[in-house]
Amino acid sequence: MDGMSQRTRLTPEQRREQLLDLGVRLFATHSLDELSIDVVAREAGISRGLLYHYFGDKVAFREAVVRRAAADLVAQTAPPATGDAAERLLASMTAYVDFVDANYEGYVSMVRGAASDPVLRKIYDEAFGALGGRIFDAGADFVTDSPAARLLVRGWQAMSEELVLSWKTDPAGLSREELLSILAGSLLTLLEMLEQG
Amino acid sequence: MDGMSQRTRLTPEQRREQLLDLGVRLFATHSLDELSIDVVAREAGISRGLLYHYFGDKVAFREAVVRRAAADLVAQTAPPATGDAAERLLASMTAYVDFVDANYEGYVSMVRGAASDPVLRKIYDEAFGALGGRIFDAGADFVTDSPAARLLVRGWQAMSEELVLSWKTDPAGLSREELLSILAGSLLTLLEMLEQG
Repeated sequence: MDGMSQRTRLTPEQRREQLLDLGVRLFATHSLDELSIDVVAREAGISRGLLYHYFGDKVAFREAVVRRAAADLVAQTAPPATGDAAERLLASMTAYVDFVDANYEGYVSMVRGAASDPVLRKIYDEAFGALGGRIFDAGADFVTDSPAARLLVRGWQAMSEELVLSWKTDPAGLSREELLSILAGSLLTLLEMLEQG
Repeated sequence: MDGMSQRTRLTPEQRREQLLDLGVRLFATHSLDELSIDVVAREAGISRGLLYHYFGDKVAFREAVVRRAAADLVAQTAPPATGDAAERLLASMTAYVDFVDANYEGYVSMVRGAASDPVLRKIYDEAFGALGGRIFDAGADFVTDSPAARLLVRGWQAMSEELVLSWKTDPAGLSREELLSILAGSLLTLLEMLEQG
């Protein structure tokens, strides 16, 4: 009996990961403000004290959740290794729309939190930078890397975020395919505008 | 003497306007958090108590300043009555870049404040809506009004804001003219993408 419970007992790291997973799952449909220690402790079936033990305090827990959600976003939108640049961009944008769709409440809350909280802003900026930087990674053969191109990609990312969030609230008659076509196509067009001077 | 001071004495409304003007001037180079009652009262040469008398409290004063700054933005970026659509768009965008340039600290602070404060968000959204709505006003002959076109304009506005704020921090080798050409050109291109389906 003791042997059994030894075998299935989680290490503190595993237990912390499990709580983080739960937090991220709740973050999909709850804003940061709603992500209270009470809710998470109840869902996890543990005491508030134990949650504090793993994460220090409420702010640290929320930061850990946002950090994990941002890492999930970056991981889930990784473009496929094969295909031409336009295909890979479209696949990545499709994954982005799916992510925002599935994690709308938390995503909006992260964007808003980033505007007012320096720690959240840093997490958000790093994820935003990682997503944008991919455009310039080896294999992204449709763009010449330059400070101006990176500036344009930043602007395009802001537009994409606004478009997807607004579309999620009100599709305005645009199908998912039409939205994706505009998202991917507008990047190519913007970068062409730059090349043409 | 009394007659003189009677003639030059401001009405409460005029005095309030004058204080608001001062607040908006300070808001150009100060964030909302820096826009303290102390600073404004000192600059105006009046007591804190008098400032409270005119505006109620600090939050109400800040809201009044942001409301005025947003109205200034909308007024200063009004497109000229003549010229073709592309010329008027370019003139309006030039005024937008000039406004952000001259009011950078306050503008950034308004954008960030809008993310976390519902009252500021309402002011910001109204200004954002007024700027975007102009694209569809009579005379904007390059666009068919539709929910999808309005969605795209929202996205384009978010991109424009990000581009101008990032460019102001680091021009990335882009001249003001090149930036403006991209801002105005990208809207036309986006709307063309929509028309082409």
